[in-house]
Amino acid sequence: MPTPRTYGEIPGYPVGSTFQNRTELAKSQVHRPLQGGICGGQDGAESIVVSGGYIDDEDFGDEILYTGQGGNDPNTKRQVAHQQLKFGNLGLVRSQLEGYPVRVIRGAQGDRAHSPAEGFRYDGLYRVADHWSQVGVHGFRIWRFRLVELESTDRPPPDVEAAGPAGRERAVIQRLIRSTPVANAAKRLNDYRCQVCGLRLETPTGPYAEAAHIRALGRPHDGPDRLSNILCLCPNHHVLFDTGAIVVDEDGIVRDTISGQEIGKLRMDLGHAIDWTHLTYHRQAHKQ
Amino acid sequence: MPTPRTYGEIPGYPVGSTFQNRTELAKSQVHRPLQGGICGGQDGAESIVVSGGYIDDEDFGDEILYTGQGGNDPNTKRQVAHQQLKFGNLGLVRSQLEGYPVRVIRGAQGDRAHSPAEGFRYDGLYRVADHWSQVGVHGFRIWRFRLVELESTDRPPPDVEAAGPAGRERAVIQRLIRSTPVANAAKRLNDYRCQVCGLRLETPTGPYAEAAHIRALGRPHDGPDRLSNILCLCPNHHVLFDTGAIVVDEDGIVRDTISGQEIGKLRMDLGHAIDWTHLTYHRQAHKQ
Repeated sequence: MPTPRTYGEIPGYPVGSTFQNRTELAKSQVHRPLQGGICGGQDGAESIVVSGGYIDDEDFGDEILYTGQGGNDPNTKRQVAHQQLKFGNLGLVRSQLEGYPVRVIRGAQGDRAHSPAEGFRYDGLYRVADHWSQVGVHGFRIWRFRLVELESTDRPPPDVEAAGPAGRERAVIQRLIRSTPVANAAKRLNDYRCQVCGLRLETPTGPYAEAAHIRALGRPHDGPDRLSNILCLCPNHHVLFDTGAIVVDEDGIVRDTISGQEIGKLRMDLGHAIDWTHLTYHRQAHKQ
Repeated sequence: MPTPRTYGEIPGYPVGSTFQNRTELAKSQVHRPLQGGICGGQDGAESIVVSGGYIDDEDFGDEILYTGQGGNDPNTKRQVAHQQLKFGNLGLVRSQLEGYPVRVIRGAQGDRAHSPAEGFRYDGLYRVADHWSQVGVHGFRIWRFRLVELESTDRPPPDVEAAGPAGRERAVIQRLIRSTPVANAAKRLNDYRCQVCGLRLETPTGPYAEAAHIRALGRPHDGPDRLSNILCLCPNHHVLFDTGAIVVDEDGIVRDTISGQEIGKLRMDLGHAIDWTHLTYHRQAHKQ
């Protein structure tokens, strides 16, 4: 039975609330564990503490590149083993998939520009925008997460507001598909057919497809917004590709990473050239 | 060959630019047609004029319920025939699916609270959040669109900004999946299986599904955020359901509205009771 979780604000603790130590923080329920940076499990993660425990963390204020838990020596902060996609790390991915907001607490040991001078401070709600694995500065595999500050709860995005009482405070962004002009070119080039399964979703006003950037745009991947970095996918295979449930191997074969089975050859028969280094990057970003 | 379109801002015409008449407006390229409220076609719609031409229009400032084109008598403004999902109406749906921004121009004949005293004014970029058909106040079928003002281009949502030069100005929201606590309950109740096709998308951190509100939340549908108004769907069938490519008939059979074929019975074997009046509402909202 998973622990019942509270996602979102804890009543009585607005943004800016401070705590002298972890005991006080835990008592407030803003971040319940006395140790550990992530409060989460298989159903989702509700809060994290950003306090400089991991050398790979990067804090930009409204955006945080956060390192998952496990494998580090708490005294030296050195990574001494691989991290796994379990417990809190798994929880942060679930929060990404379900769109749960994550409470962010900063500790005095974190980035100087964004952290409190002493103790801990609740800094508001963030959403998990991305997750991937990489080999960290100490040579072991770590899981990383990009968290992006949510709009202030005082001013939700227009169409949440429009949803009235049902949507106003409780709706969360589960999935946000962005597109660019280049992405639309990729869709047209593939005639809106999924490059994994060949499906072309037909709607009353024409076909629908999504463009997946193979190597993500933005920090820290900085993938290019070019045709060679884009796949045209149906929404189902887009989810599977973004979560690493499927990858494309060196031979252009789409593989199910859970079962290990071949799904088929990536469809590239329409003159849509893919840069294979991006597919390698994607495979590595989802290596467990 | 579709007309090449310009989506987004027209250089030299910032928000608030005014125009004495349609000729001046057309010359600026902000809204190219000399007549007609929608500049759009099968590839998308780039701009609309909101000027009180349709009695069903409702203008809330940052949100507009806009009536599609066709079927009205320009002199009496009375609807004298059904509107069809063609031309500009089709274009607005494509802009919704592709996430293209739509330039909104208000004319002096529109809603008093939000319109200029004379001539026309460019009021910025909106996105098409929803479309549906209904029988209008004059007894004929009209297509309606909910447009929501985009964030100011000065301050894009955090993760567009994070995407840097590639994403900063050109990325658009193609699809925004919101979820609520009740929606997650519906997913768990259905074990994350699509109620149309039975698929359960497996990711490395567990299953993924989406919750579709049958009767949409928010204006003007005001559907309830309850289990009886929610379907658990795979992302592909979510797109098809939201666009009306599939509907559920009186017998609980899922039908493809394009081919007319039966897809199968809606899966409701897990104690997830659906309110049938919402399914009727959905069918009618996508009637052509």
